[in-house]
Amino acid sequence: MKIEHLGIAIKNLENSDHLFAKLLGTSPYKQEAVEREGVKTSFFMVGESKIELLEATNPESPIAKFIEKRGEGIHHIAFAVEDIKKEVERLKAEGFLFISEEPKDGADNKLVVFLHPKSTNGVLVELCQEKP
Amino acid sequence: MKIEHLGIAIKNLENSDHLFAKLLGTSPYKQEAVEREGVKTSFFMVGESKIELLEATNPESPIAKFIEKRGEGIHHIAFAVEDIKKEVERLKAEGFLFISEEPKDGADNKLVVFLHPKSTNGVLVELCQEKP
Repeated sequence: MKIEHLGIAIKNLENSDHLFAKLLGTSPYKQEAVEREGVKTSFFMVGESKIELLEATNPESPIAKFIEKRGEGIHHIAFAVEDIKKEVERLKAEGFLFISEEPKDGADNKLVVFLHPKSTNGVLVELCQEKP
Repeated sequence: MKIEHLGIAIKNLENSDHLFAKLLGTSPYKQEAVEREGVKTSFFMVGESKIELLEATNPESPIAKFIEKRGEGIHHIAFAVEDIKKEVERLKAEGFLFISEEPKDGADNKLVVFLHPKSTNGVLVELCQEKP
């Protein structure tokens, strides 16, 4: 297991790309839109993990709602898993709740699911598996 | 550079140790109090990074105030640096603001500083250097 990425909700991708490039001392290696989630994203490599910046592309996007409620900031943490369906079953058996149990296409060629923060001390946890 | 750890503010360390052990499939490898910050901490290894759980030990602790305002959840992200003073100088020159510029003793044998979230899109960023 490793931290695959940390998702950060921001208002303006261009401004934040510039800011995080200065902070991390490296440029984003990829930008990608995920239409279904209503987001544009940028990725930075930091060791074995990534920082993912997320800008909402419409007001119904979960990122727009997060920023409206709490302002910009850390949105979620994603852990890399080998077999996402097996991991969902393991965690369900341990009593964890999921926002949706069925893996969906995420950014960066991943299958992803999100655990519900009410079962993880307020932390929005994503599991992601590299797509074959 | 790598993500050294991710700090998570929680209300009860014993309960959350149990919860995160189930989530991560591993036990905490260390518990430590940092009196100056008014916290008790637990650390879990996840790949090259750590998850740090933080429980407040008094009502004036920054963790108590964070939970009062926003509830439990992700509190900060820490990046490992080789030379913390040099990195503070580099980031100051880039216009970043610090909560305090002078490195202090943190948990886990580290010298630490925190950037001010108003200069980092609402993200509380810690820099930490292993103590000699």
